[in-house]
Amino acid sequence: MSTKATFYHAGCPVCVAAERTVAEALDRSKYTVEIVHLGQQKSRVAEAENAGVKSVPALVINGQPFHINHGADLSVLK
Amino acid sequence: MSTKATFYHAGCPVCVAAERTVAEALDRSKYTVEIVHLGQQKSRVAEAENAGVKSVPALVINGQPFHINHGADLSVLK
Repeated sequence: MSTKATFYHAGCPVCVAAERTVAEALDRSKYTVEIVHLGQQKSRVAEAENAGVKSVPALVINGQPFHINHGADLSVLK
Repeated sequence: MSTKATFYHAGCPVCVAAERTVAEALDRSKYTVEIVHLGQQKSRVAEAENAGVKSVPALVINGQPFHINHGADLSVLK
């Protein structure tokens, strides 16, 4: 069964580096990876927040939030 | 060719969660993943620092440091 992994970002340089390297490195045979640009999909900010995301870039795997470096606080995306 | 990914941690709860979830999710067909416990291998703190690691848990992929959440500053491990 595939585990859901969601990578939230906002297009910032820190986000792009994490997307290209960390999100790209996930095992696609085990994980279904969705990339969400919160700057362009503001309707999903609440979903990220509910998952415990405080800043982007962040990766939510199995409902657990992992903040990867620091690009921007979620509050600036609301 | 396999890319080198090094996961640095210090056994803290935040580290263990990141290890079990993020380090575990990396595609082993493309990445050679090494797990380094800096509390037990203090001789490798300098190597992590040279790679730009400031805190653990951190993942270094292709020489780029990615700090995943925040467990402890590297300075407390010296």
